[in-house]
Amino acid sequence: MTTPHSALPFDDIRALFRSMPEADAAAVARVRARDAVLTKPPRSLGRLEEIAEWLAAWQGRSPPAVNRPLVAIFAGNHGVAAKGVSAYPAEVTAQMVENFRRGGAAINQLCVLYDLSLKVYDLALEQPTGDITEEPAMSELDCAATMAFGMEATAGGIDLLAIGEMGIGNTAVAAAIFAALFGGDAADWVGPGTGVAGEGLARKRDAVAKALALHRRRFSDPLEVLRRLGGREIAAMAGAVLAARMGRIPVIVDGFVATAAVAVLYAVDKRSIEHCLFAHVSAEPAHARALAAMGVRPLLDLGMRLGEGTGAALAAGIVKAAARLHSGMATFAEAGVSDKE
Amino acid sequence: MTTPHSALPFDDIRALFRSMPEADAAAVARVRARDAVLTKPPRSLGRLEEIAEWLAAWQGRSPPAVNRPLVAIFAGNHGVAAKGVSAYPAEVTAQMVENFRRGGAAINQLCVLYDLSLKVYDLALEQPTGDITEEPAMSELDCAATMAFGMEATAGGIDLLAIGEMGIGNTAVAAAIFAALFGGDAADWVGPGTGVAGEGLARKRDAVAKALALHRRRFSDPLEVLRRLGGREIAAMAGAVLAARMGRIPVIVDGFVATAAVAVLYAVDKRSIEHCLFAHVSAEPAHARALAAMGVRPLLDLGMRLGEGTGAALAAGIVKAAARLHSGMATFAEAGVSDKE
Repeated sequence: MTTPHSALPFDDIRALFRSMPEADAAAVARVRARDAVLTKPPRSLGRLEEIAEWLAAWQGRSPPAVNRPLVAIFAGNHGVAAKGVSAYPAEVTAQMVENFRRGGAAINQLCVLYDLSLKVYDLALEQPTGDITEEPAMSELDCAATMAFGMEATAGGIDLLAIGEMGIGNTAVAAAIFAALFGGDAADWVGPGTGVAGEGLARKRDAVAKALALHRRRFSDPLEVLRRLGGREIAAMAGAVLAARMGRIPVIVDGFVATAAVAVLYAVDKRSIEHCLFAHVSAEPAHARALAAMGVRPLLDLGMRLGEGTGAALAAGIVKAAARLHSGMATFAEAGVSDKE
Repeated sequence: MTTPHSALPFDDIRALFRSMPEADAAAVARVRARDAVLTKPPRSLGRLEEIAEWLAAWQGRSPPAVNRPLVAIFAGNHGVAAKGVSAYPAEVTAQMVENFRRGGAAINQLCVLYDLSLKVYDLALEQPTGDITEEPAMSELDCAATMAFGMEATAGGIDLLAIGEMGIGNTAVAAAIFAALFGGDAADWVGPGTGVAGEGLARKRDAVAKALALHRRRFSDPLEVLRRLGGREIAAMAGAVLAARMGRIPVIVDGFVATAAVAVLYAVDKRSIEHCLFAHVSAEPAHARALAAMGVRPLLDLGMRLGEGTGAALAAGIVKAAARLHSGMATFAEAGVSDKE
């Protein structure tokens, strides 16, 4: 992302929230009507039926379909990593990007298995964002340009977007964002991330507390929270999710850090995340708290905390199932099956 | 199943419980050793890592693999259906078997999506079992022969077995089995099934209560519970799960009715279900109670209650992911990624 194509100032981003498309109620009604005559007891597929409706609502079509799903991973480096907030050294971000490109990471296995496209966006890794304990992570220009860059993930005719991330130090950053947006202190939001414990965990908590104290006068503006406490991968995910809404592309949100990006949008306007499905609740302890703060219900609870879109990819396998069940099943009439007595 | 190949009396089935293979501890140790060097923080894939270990333990190989997964659906008819315990007429069992064969049912869509083989076993549908409110469902010969028939589902070199069922009236039968094995009365175990409510639900509860009163002197023998209160699809699933254990094939158990089959084995010997993964907790209210009675933790909670192996097939998609992650991911050394500091 050395040379972003465009740079929207925050005012232009704020304007997007005022022209968001709404759910397609007619498409949802058509999904419900078809669902009622499929060869199964009514509502017996539970959440899979809700997902078919959600897909139709945001794709604006019935039947909904998942023909071109994309997993987009955004990678960024963080000045605060120098404060020793992670169990891994900062060079792991770039090394893992290379691992994604060669097909050796967890997300690669899931994308092959579930037939999901994968794109990896590395965001000026050689130039970490500012250390949030000492200065804002990004200038407004950098943050807005990175959001605009993230918006490009929605190009190419995709019909489902799963977002994930990689960035040593970014669970510290996400914890700071949640505290700024939803209240509470560092201890409420900081957890082990990749696996810090003991002194490392204390350092991480202290760094987040220091960042919160430094920036707290600007917490009422969610985009200011993003640029001051965030990171480039988080800004890019926020941009991607907002662009997906504008382009009628349903989004699957991965874990703790991806949720922080979506939380920024939520804080600007609650309705801006209605097209998002939350893949899972992470083993990172404060993720459940963040999901509860937004009143959303995750699909899976598998004790995962890897990031890189792995939870979102697993959920995409289930979303594909929901779409296929809805469009592929026979009706009572087609199958010659007797309906309810 | 008009002419079963063989008919084991219960004594021969009891003998199988005395020669069950154990978990392969060496294979599990090899999975753990490899997992520790894969490019991710330790334990960050949560339950997916546990599943890889479970696969290795019961397949007796490392790395584990899911190359030939099978969904086996067993269909049976029940004399008690004449008591009006279901929202659908009894002919729906045979109609749905035809729907499975033509590819129009929910399970067909999931098997295509996740690349799972599907076999459908219809068990003398024209000859419903005895009405459990008036007589035993099966003779010992019929029950044992049906268990033996179910064992054939494990043939053909499969390396993962997902079991499901179809049978109008069979949630009533499953409720009776749970009450007989785990205690409590009809009201504790009877729920809406395919969707009975009001008078229909009261009829269902009364039928189960009557069956429990009639057969209660034989509840100390789980195989007697199976033949008196069960059904052919339940006996066949019990046989299939037992044969899978003997043949080192891990099993994914579907919902309320499939769990009743496994509960019979559990009641004979708790260790006989260690090779079983419970796919999901059904929306049928007493399913959670049954899982808790056996101390097992379901993988998914999606509000499903369709049966026909749909929950097990969704879980199979995740089990395949666990196997692929374990065998496909690069190690830190292979990928040139720095390990924990």
